[in-house]
Amino acid sequence: MAAAAAAARAEGPPLPGPPGGRPRPVCSRPYFLVLMVFAHLYVLNVLGLLLFVHLSAGEAGGPPAAPPPPPPPPPARALPRLEGIKVGHTQRVELVPGRVHAVRTLSLKPLLFEIPDFLTEEECKLIVHLAQLKGLQKSQILPTDDYEEAMEMIEISQMDIFNLLDHNQDGQLQLKEVLTHTRLGNGRWMTPENIREMYTAVKADPDGNGVLSLEEFKQLNIRDFHKYMGSQKVKMSDLVRNSQHTWLYQGEGAHQVMRAIRQRVMRLTRLPPEIVEHSEPLQVVRYDQGGHYHAHMDSGPVFPETACSHTKLVANESAPFETSCRYVTVLFYLNNVTGGGETVFPIADNRTYEEMSLIQNDVDLRDTRKNCDKGNLRVKPQQGTAVFWYNYLSDGEGWVGELDDFALHGGCLVTQGTKWIANNWINVDPNRRRQLQFQQEMERYAGAEAGAGAPGEWTVDKAYSGVHLEL
Amino acid sequence: MAAAAAAARAEGPPLPGPPGGRPRPVCSRPYFLVLMVFAHLYVLNVLGLLLFVHLSAGEAGGPPAAPPPPPPPPPARALPRLEGIKVGHTQRVELVPGRVHAVRTLSLKPLLFEIPDFLTEEECKLIVHLAQLKGLQKSQILPTDDYEEAMEMIEISQMDIFNLLDHNQDGQLQLKEVLTHTRLGNGRWMTPENIREMYTAVKADPDGNGVLSLEEFKQLNIRDFHKYMGSQKVKMSDLVRNSQHTWLYQGEGAHQVMRAIRQRVMRLTRLPPEIVEHSEPLQVVRYDQGGHYHAHMDSGPVFPETACSHTKLVANESAPFETSCRYVTVLFYLNNVTGGGETVFPIADNRTYEEMSLIQNDVDLRDTRKNCDKGNLRVKPQQGTAVFWYNYLSDGEGWVGELDDFALHGGCLVTQGTKWIANNWINVDPNRRRQLQFQQEMERYAGAEAGAGAPGEWTVDKAYSGVHLEL
Repeated sequence: MAAAAAAARAEGPPLPGPPGGRPRPVCSRPYFLVLMVFAHLYVLNVLGLLLFVHLSAGEAGGPPAAPPPPPPPPPARALPRLEGIKVGHTQRVELVPGRVHAVRTLSLKPLLFEIPDFLTEEECKLIVHLAQLKGLQKSQILPTDDYEEAMEMIEISQMDIFNLLDHNQDGQLQLKEVLTHTRLGNGRWMTPENIREMYTAVKADPDGNGVLSLEEFKQLNIRDFHKYMGSQKVKMSDLVRNSQHTWLYQGEGAHQVMRAIRQRVMRLTRLPPEIVEHSEPLQVVRYDQGGHYHAHMDSGPVFPETACSHTKLVANESAPFETSCRYVTVLFYLNNVTGGGETVFPIADNRTYEEMSLIQNDVDLRDTRKNCDKGNLRVKPQQGTAVFWYNYLSDGEGWVGELDDFALHGGCLVTQGTKWIANNWINVDPNRRRQLQFQQEMERYAGAEAGAGAPGEWTVDKAYSGVHLEL
Repeated sequence: MAAAAAAARAEGPPLPGPPGGRPRPVCSRPYFLVLMVFAHLYVLNVLGLLLFVHLSAGEAGGPPAAPPPPPPPPPARALPRLEGIKVGHTQRVELVPGRVHAVRTLSLKPLLFEIPDFLTEEECKLIVHLAQLKGLQKSQILPTDDYEEAMEMIEISQMDIFNLLDHNQDGQLQLKEVLTHTRLGNGRWMTPENIREMYTAVKADPDGNGVLSLEEFKQLNIRDFHKYMGSQKVKMSDLVRNSQHTWLYQGEGAHQVMRAIRQRVMRLTRLPPEIVEHSEPLQVVRYDQGGHYHAHMDSGPVFPETACSHTKLVANESAPFETSCRYVTVLFYLNNVTGGGETVFPIADNRTYEEMSLIQNDVDLRDTRKNCDKGNLRVKPQQGTAVFWYNYLSDGEGWVGELDDFALHGGCLVTQGTKWIANNWINVDPNRRRQLQFQQEMERYAGAEAGAGAPGEWTVDKAYSGVHLEL
């Protein structure tokens, strides 16, 4: 990790990446090529983990010889975190003056709550109406031919690819090792059947056992894969995400209902106003019949060299990775769905987490078109209900810590009717100093604007309002 | 519950119960008889749960119509709780001036930590030495004939017994339904094999399927069970607990090492001195080769009518149930055990809890002589290491809440050598008012003593020092 970052600095400013939440690699030679092929969160995960494990190896094993001194006092006020207590625990909270809401714990891993009647029916209808007025766009588009063409141009060692994919380093590629790298499909969702069909088409797996040995892998031409992928007809339902969405501004001057919801989210999460007000606008999502969103994380892992989308400009640091740093997700159900459309948390409260155990015996728990019934926890959409969870653990010092792997979730297949939801993400930089710097800059900016208008208003949301965020 | 309590009050002062941690029933007619037969925590659990479910039935189902107003502000300062963050998370804490200890999270359910080198080798040796000087006694004695004789005198409806045991109310007694009521064996640990042998001996289960139907149950004489039980030769290894123990005073005037450990426990748990100082003395336990302690809870469930052993005299209330209200357990390993002797938490971090699922296919996860290897978490004894956990959840308002079922734990069979451990329990009354009242009384008592001696010292521990606590 440190080496990659050093290389990036030596080579000058970071390469331009796509806007929005996707990780943006800035790396030196071999990694750069590999990342061109698998420009994808999961590969970054694997790389990051490999490096992280490597770098942390000195710490593990043996008794702690000389532990470091206790850390200095934190520089900013601690972020409160709701107590989950236990599944089913209900706390009463006054989110609107004179009205009490029930906040029920749905799981501890992730720390997840459900709040019935968080929004009124009128508020739900208004949000849908505003979104329709603004217009929605496809959340993901069909893959173009560019990808396959680009892939065919790249010379890269097959051995490197093999080693990247061989998660358990047993010299064989199991189906689930290939499946875990969802973006190998360039936005297409890969199922065990897909992979087997592809193997058959390119004669990759002569013995048909679904496992590629190093020998089998060496004997095939990786371009045949790309050609096969390019030749396949892709439907919207074959994608990772089949929905439409838009963004609604919640900052100064926004519709009073949009402002009221932001205030309510503040009271619910108890997070400081300066953090909530500087977060992403409201995302409104429409799933038509047949729509879905396979299980995913709302935010990425954080390594020392990871930048947050919301603070990176202010921090003005080059970084090899970038993620959206969504500390909290608040999801609102805007209508009652006739059939399907549950939110599934396939591994909520599992005892342990192992990425590879998400796929067992050709059952991929992340597949929300097929396997929602096998997930641990499903939330049925109910108009006005909000669910909210933490995508990151605490760091034990009142700030954001590691990504919570158990926060994996998806939108189940809508079998009948339309599903409308909205998402409020609360962005916090796990780097406390950077978050503070960002807030100070935003306040300065607001102060400068105040000279020419309303004083002390939050302005970052405005900056978001025109931006097309790719998520 | 309310009915039982009302009956108890109407009938005058509570019946005298055995001293120490066991629940002490005070009930009206039918329950009283039943409880005589099964004077036992698990039956109280079942009864309590049945009543609790009954009383709470009005709350469940349907949307919350008019939720109650938020509770008033708490009357005493909140109890801090360490953050677990995630399994494997390590925090550095200065427990001794100038020395940093690692506190590693072992599980979240229960919230459980391990602290290597909490005690020095010299401290461990001193504790063992002091315990040997004081002398240890058997933690549990072999059952006497009194039990069987008493049982044979009691007239009680077989139907009542059947219904109490039939946990899932399916009209049949599964083996695990009988096994769950450990104290049916009067201190003997019951295994599936024991029960099958008993069924055979008294011809209780003609079809030999290990399940007693209501018809089969009706046709047998319950006295035959008692006679059979009385006729069986019982060894120490057949008991729930096979160890010896003693108590070491930690209060004013105690050995400086005993005082230092109490101070260290205070720093570790961050609990207020007035709570730690008013808690039980140190229990030192010796397991010889062949020793064990089947999985159990260190404290009992809390219902509105439950009294705590440490506050009951001050509170001066009659209560149908009593438990030791051990909020926290701190367990110290005093030596390295040659073989076995791990502490097992069979269901730590399981996704859900179901009492009956502790026994599956004749495998009883609570059996620490047979099934320690099947438990979720085992801690190997290492001299000087402390583990500590919360037996109760938080109530969400900074005080003690419900019993944490996941805190079930036991001492695995010592296969070679001797095992020495010590336990520090920190007693907190889940009733905040009663705990406060208790503390005020203790301070008053200390103040009165101070007039005749050293001022402001803690005296409750002294009261414990002479008491033989049955645990």
